[in-house]
Amino acid sequence: MFITFEGIDLSGKSTQIILLKEYLNSKRKKVITVREPGGTQISEKIRDILLDKKNLNMEYLTEFLLFSSSRHQLTKEVIIPNLKKKYFVISDRYYDSSTAYQGYGGMIELKTIRYVNNIASGALTPDLTFLINISIEECIKRKKLMNKTEDRIEQKKVSYFNKVIKGYLQIAKNNKNRFVVIDGTKPIQEIHSEIISVIKSKVKI
Amino acid sequence: MFITFEGIDLSGKSTQIILLKEYLNSKRKKVITVREPGGTQISEKIRDILLDKKNLNMEYLTEFLLFSSSRHQLTKEVIIPNLKKKYFVISDRYYDSSTAYQGYGGMIELKTIRYVNNIASGALTPDLTFLINISIEECIKRKKLMNKTEDRIEQKKVSYFNKVIKGYLQIAKNNKNRFVVIDGTKPIQEIHSEIISVIKSKVKI
Repeated sequence: MFITFEGIDLSGKSTQIILLKEYLNSKRKKVITVREPGGTQISEKIRDILLDKKNLNMEYLTEFLLFSSSRHQLTKEVIIPNLKKKYFVISDRYYDSSTAYQGYGGMIELKTIRYVNNIASGALTPDLTFLINISIEECIKRKKLMNKTEDRIEQKKVSYFNKVIKGYLQIAKNNKNRFVVIDGTKPIQEIHSEIISVIKSKVKI
Repeated sequence: MFITFEGIDLSGKSTQIILLKEYLNSKRKKVITVREPGGTQISEKIRDILLDKKNLNMEYLTEFLLFSSSRHQLTKEVIIPNLKKKYFVISDRYYDSSTAYQGYGGMIELKTIRYVNNIASGALTPDLTFLINISIEECIKRKKLMNKTEDRIEQKKVSYFNKVIKGYLQIAKNNKNRFVVIDGTKPIQEIHSEIISVIKSKVKI
């Protein structure tokens, strides 16, 4: 089963992925977690270029093609082989991130995004996608609390992230068969229980 | 005018580009030369990933998307602004390289190559493309003479390069309006004169 987590930074994706992995392990399931961009030797080097603050004048399409190349390598080298070995593969971001960030946020034509997403992923669609939804105000509040330094993408403007958040909700609406939208302001344990109950409704664990 | 040079390594592209630039400068033309992959801060970092011998298990589609991201940044940041300023822009490789190497060589579907080439280049087609054609045997002979170390792509098999060479000739056939095929075993000065006379037939210099 291929499960992806989507949402803007600090929405709580990573925490939920850790909790889900622990839960599935406790049920003796084989689990592998990956993150985008990255997850292979080549993809991590692409990640460095994408997040480097020096690369401020990166075009949105350059960004999108870099994410896509990193994604392709990750899919072929890690995700598909592990799905074949019957692992639960949990990914922190997948191609919906490109649709939200470079498509809705960066204004790249959605048909271009769809075409390249499809080839880069080898037409691999997640079985289940959790969108942890928080507002940009909530994100900024959490950022202040954590005193986090921002990478190249994180330092973009509020108006950009509002387009990304709206985009995510639209993608969820267009892909109801696999998307579950979760209110990211709920307590961590409550979100975790919600995620488990959704997974239990889809597969025996 | 946007002029590109294509051909396998050691075909003599770089030498001809230097000679052409000198010639155009002597005619008081403004000229800028670029090379692929590379030519911008971001594109040079992508080049490092593409040529690094450690990245041996790179998928052809990952390679293609990396070339395309590097090309997009170069096109937007350097090629288009300089064409607007009425420069002659001469590029050592452009998207025909992807069609030949990752398409005909790496067996990525040509319609995929065409689609991504078109978006990555912003639909910018070269006005003139010189294909300097040599055989793989000639390439190997020259490599031995030069004692050159090979990068990740150069160390691929002979059968691969034969597909690339055949591919290039097919691309030239399909794009007769802008392609000029030159026998790369001719003397350097003879090739140079051929190139000048073709350019003179197209534009006043």
